[in-house]
Amino acid sequence: MIGFKIIKKSKLSKARLGVLKTPHGEIETPAFVGVATQATIKILTTEEVLKTKTQILIANTYHLHQRPGEHIVAKSGGVHKFMNWPGALMTDSGGFQVFSLGFGSDHGVGKILKEKKDIVVKADMQPQKMRITEDGVHFRSPIDGREIFIGPKESIRIQEKLGADIIFAFDECTSPVADYEYTKRSLRKSHRWAKQCLEYQKTNQALFGITQGGKFKDLRIESAKFIGSLPFAGFGIGGEFGNDKKKMAAMIRWVVRELPENKPRHLLGIGHPEDIPKIIKEGIDTFDCIAPTHYARRGVAFTSEGRLDMNRRTFLQDKKPLDNSCDCTTCSNYSRSYITHLFKAKEITGMHLLTFHNLYFFNSLVAGIREKIKKGKI
Amino acid sequence: MIGFKIIKKSKLSKARLGVLKTPHGEIETPAFVGVATQATIKILTTEEVLKTKTQILIANTYHLHQRPGEHIVAKSGGVHKFMNWPGALMTDSGGFQVFSLGFGSDHGVGKILKEKKDIVVKADMQPQKMRITEDGVHFRSPIDGREIFIGPKESIRIQEKLGADIIFAFDECTSPVADYEYTKRSLRKSHRWAKQCLEYQKTNQALFGITQGGKFKDLRIESAKFIGSLPFAGFGIGGEFGNDKKKMAAMIRWVVRELPENKPRHLLGIGHPEDIPKIIKEGIDTFDCIAPTHYARRGVAFTSEGRLDMNRRTFLQDKKPLDNSCDCTTCSNYSRSYITHLFKAKEITGMHLLTFHNLYFFNSLVAGIREKIKKGKI
Repeated sequence: MIGFKIIKKSKLSKARLGVLKTPHGEIETPAFVGVATQATIKILTTEEVLKTKTQILIANTYHLHQRPGEHIVAKSGGVHKFMNWPGALMTDSGGFQVFSLGFGSDHGVGKILKEKKDIVVKADMQPQKMRITEDGVHFRSPIDGREIFIGPKESIRIQEKLGADIIFAFDECTSPVADYEYTKRSLRKSHRWAKQCLEYQKTNQALFGITQGGKFKDLRIESAKFIGSLPFAGFGIGGEFGNDKKKMAAMIRWVVRELPENKPRHLLGIGHPEDIPKIIKEGIDTFDCIAPTHYARRGVAFTSEGRLDMNRRTFLQDKKPLDNSCDCTTCSNYSRSYITHLFKAKEITGMHLLTFHNLYFFNSLVAGIREKIKKGKI
Repeated sequence: MIGFKIIKKSKLSKARLGVLKTPHGEIETPAFVGVATQATIKILTTEEVLKTKTQILIANTYHLHQRPGEHIVAKSGGVHKFMNWPGALMTDSGGFQVFSLGFGSDHGVGKILKEKKDIVVKADMQPQKMRITEDGVHFRSPIDGREIFIGPKESIRIQEKLGADIIFAFDECTSPVADYEYTKRSLRKSHRWAKQCLEYQKTNQALFGITQGGKFKDLRIESAKFIGSLPFAGFGIGGEFGNDKKKMAAMIRWVVRELPENKPRHLLGIGHPEDIPKIIKEGIDTFDCIAPTHYARRGVAFTSEGRLDMNRRTFLQDKKPLDNSCDCTTCSNYSRSYITHLFKAKEITGMHLLTFHNLYFFNSLVAGIREKIKKGKI
């Protein structure tokens, strides 16, 4: 089980400083959660991940169920031992993939709607590549074509075998183009699944419920009230956050207000540098985001002066580090010139050095915000 | 400049234990030289390369001339500073690429002829993608199409800008399917170029001459005598080594006999684990080989029990480390099961962990042989 202690509450916002105690160490919150979907932070060794000051990781039920299978992971003693991660660990429930590989894939949309779409997901519609029933989700494995069913029971059983410190209830993450009726019906189903997850769970892993409700204020509030009333160890906030990042803070506010004060709140899959202060001010304790690793592999460095695209030739002439105010090993040892050379020469070492820096940068950014909360400055 | 001191000569073979003093530290010989073609050991950071016990690296004139260009590297203070490598460093002259991108590419052959080929390279023949003249090699850059000429003077000038501790004379590495006449004429040209390199060199980098001669005993001996008589700081042995690895030892013997005893001998581009004891027994002091890194990226681990193909599903069930007798961080921290999962899941971290292990394994193997020479057991 976990423990959560709030050390200080900001007087200027809803931000709070806390300690999340897990069987694998204490996490200072607010905390960035590194995304280790397939039981690895892409490219890095676990020893390196520790050096990026990452405190906690999130692995994925959907992916690990298919490959290598939870039985293989369990044989190694769970994800911690499998990947040699000594720190705290979460597993996502697979509910996000119900969206990303369903309507998300059909309509080419993510959780944040970047452009206006003509398409609307209405009640009773089904995605092309899966069938969502009242009990769970049927689909064919994209890897080997075998039929897979994941419902609340299956998700919890898989997550129990994976053995993370914190696990999530199975839900349906709805599409940003889903209409009110679809979202409402989906929400009722996710709520039923949430209760089933609580009933099925046999381990003493910390089970977090997930609130949904799309862009609809009444549904968001209804979900937060309902999920918040159940005996979960903590709460995830899932789903879309508007087609405009400015709405995100408002939407988080609708939800956080309804959640119990004394339990941790995890924002699922959100957290670009510009979002981080905002979501923390709304009372978020932990959040996971692929941005630092995803963009690193595409040559983008996050720095205190904003994003740098290291694919740009001009950086070949630039002997400065990525970020003058960063003390990570990439910034201490390598120049922009060298990193751009590596990207131009298609050397993976470039992605490696950027992944390390970006994770270190995100963790440092959040550590800085913790410091500000401590000093009453946020 | 470098210094070379022979500490002990084996009584059982031509093996010798030595110390190669360079401006960037002392190398215990025999030594494996890590291949950092584009100024990086593929995937690894320089900090990691140091932990694999790698003492010395070899970067490539042909590749770095094209990308990022020697001027960019020189601006950073040379390859050492560019890639943050504190240890000793060699640059190859580009002569190997005259073969690999010329007749080697035309005929699909490497330095070791793995299968019988009907094709023969005869005198006055030219490869498809370059023109080899008495002065050097003309070709179009595969990267941007611009016309490039590299001759002895150009190679030395580039290598002076790159600033390695040890540089190589420009030569033509002949194809294993070249006939006697082609090889003889090429050899005369390479010999002329070797003298020109000595004349052109202005720095006090250690310049090594390269002996060629293909599979022809008289040409091999002629080349070793001629190149060995010139005031080089050391000697490279280049070119093919027979279509049969058993012939390799004999061919090295023809050459080594003719080279000065007191100068270091580098075998270019050779050194699978099974070859390493043999070439060291023939009196080779240093050798570079892509095997540990190249095969790592394809899932092959070199171990004390031979090669393991980590793409094999059966390893998913195997909780042992890659090599029980290895104390590298990969073997100390990760199972075969996890590494195979990473390869199946197409995660670069798998290549990363294997690259580290393989380099560590090669360096440990050579360290073990040094120990045996010390104890008079080889």
